[in-house]
Amino acid sequence: MSPSPSSTGSPSATAFVPAHVTGIFTVHRDDDPSRSGSRGAGLALEAGVTVEITPAETTTVLVNGEPTAVEAVDRVLDSLGVDAEVEVDAELPLGSGFGLSGAMALGSALASNAGFDLGNSENDLIEVAHVAEVEAGTGLGDVVAAARGGTPIRLEPGAPPHGTLDGIPGTARVEVLTSGGLSTPAILEDRPERITEAGERALEELLDRPTLPRFLEQSRAFARDTGLLTEDVLEVIEAVEDTGGRASMGMLGRTVMAFGTDLSEAGFDPVVTRIHPGGASILEEPGWNDSPR
Amino acid sequence: MSPSPSSTGSPSATAFVPAHVTGIFTVHRDDDPSRSGSRGAGLALEAGVTVEITPAETTTVLVNGEPTAVEAVDRVLDSLGVDAEVEVDAELPLGSGFGLSGAMALGSALASNAGFDLGNSENDLIEVAHVAEVEAGTGLGDVVAAARGGTPIRLEPGAPPHGTLDGIPGTARVEVLTSGGLSTPAILEDRPERITEAGERALEELLDRPTLPRFLEQSRAFARDTGLLTEDVLEVIEAVEDTGGRASMGMLGRTVMAFGTDLSEAGFDPVVTRIHPGGASILEEPGWNDSPR
Repeated sequence: MSPSPSSTGSPSATAFVPAHVTGIFTVHRDDDPSRSGSRGAGLALEAGVTVEITPAETTTVLVNGEPTAVEAVDRVLDSLGVDAEVEVDAELPLGSGFGLSGAMALGSALASNAGFDLGNSENDLIEVAHVAEVEAGTGLGDVVAAARGGTPIRLEPGAPPHGTLDGIPGTARVEVLTSGGLSTPAILEDRPERITEAGERALEELLDRPTLPRFLEQSRAFARDTGLLTEDVLEVIEAVEDTGGRASMGMLGRTVMAFGTDLSEAGFDPVVTRIHPGGASILEEPGWNDSPR
Repeated sequence: MSPSPSSTGSPSATAFVPAHVTGIFTVHRDDDPSRSGSRGAGLALEAGVTVEITPAETTTVLVNGEPTAVEAVDRVLDSLGVDAEVEVDAELPLGSGFGLSGAMALGSALASNAGFDLGNSENDLIEVAHVAEVEAGTGLGDVVAAARGGTPIRLEPGAPPHGTLDGIPGTARVEVLTSGGLSTPAILEDRPERITEAGERALEELLDRPTLPRFLEQSRAFARDTGLLTEDVLEVIEAVEDTGGRASMGMLGRTVMAFGTDLSEAGFDPVVTRIHPGGASILEEPGWNDSPR
């Protein structure tokens, strides 16, 4: 009954973390990175990342087989005091507004905890990943959202216990279409107040009636009011609206999200996924708890 | 794109809620039922309940096809102001320490919200179900635990935002064996201080190293220290220990829980399930978000 990885043939551990496409956000900076973060709302998606951690002499990160530098992942492993081979399978493209750096950071934290038998709680690991993501400058709210799953509403910014969450109940088929990334830090540094003002307004409207149609409506208002809408994203959204559908922008990417078949019925060829109800979890860990003794 | 149930052929909605078998608990009563509750820890199980809600003239509750009185469900529907046919499929027996009254209450809240398009948030619905369960006197911590999924640790008692949660990371095959129920109110009224004292002690040890083996160890200590262990449950636990395994008691039932194959290797014929990573969710709702327009 020993949970020590050294006692098993396969010491690797695997975690799944949903992608998170943000519709509404605010920007809150604090000297304490665990209190930095974002209020807002987004969709956790079944199209996510699996992260496999295998203890190694030095840390390496492979994303879909390619060596890739992911600062948030390096920071997680440093913070936990481990070195490992990190193998990521990602179903959506990096750097396009799907929160994948945060998802990889959280998956690395969960899988390292299991593979090295570190004995941290879920909240501990969410905090480690959130702080790594904030310090890497690659995100503010994706880690806590992906940890919860569903359609998380970030009521207060930061990692637990500072950050608090609610959620929009419901299930939906989701279509996403992306043509790449936007430079996150530049936009956030240029006009954080304008973003936060629009974000607070959209969030207030959403909290008044937290449904999926209202989420999309207020995401659309937020994209318009912040000036974050790019020309190519606007063209796709308007094409969907011309055929009677609804769509909005995934922040921060040149990415459009819609429910049901609204993108495909407008003639696009989107990635089809669903809202992921469950949030991040361990898929496999060294085997005291599954195998016969 | 109307989410109104009256616009679709099938106005019913279905939710899934995991069962929750409690290992450690404390008792906290407050004049405000949303602040009443329990600290402690348990396992959310894939063997849970599905709850289908169909609007009707008067409320009826069927559990596995049988008309059944479930006060917590009636209170949820009253609280939400709706009448419905409630059809529950339950994979485990009621009244045996699997938190099914809380699961049915939460599933009724989630499915009613979807079926009647009520526009509540997840936290709103968790509070409605928690209050219904507390007022019915059938549970204190199952609703918030089943909402989260995994192996929830109840850090503070009550519904959100009062109650706060953490979790033990990890996945495991779970075996459970039950021979029926214990009278919940009698035990809780007779010796709440002794239970709470033992629960606080076990929870402190668990929080020091929140792992699944430690959960089982401290659940065992809690069952011993409270005097809640019944003779037949103790016999099963000792039989498992005699074959080198570990098991503890599911509160409050004549129920034994173990990881891996520890019950079956000791010669018992348990129900086999797993930790449910995701918590409660909507499975189906009236169809604006899935069907082609």
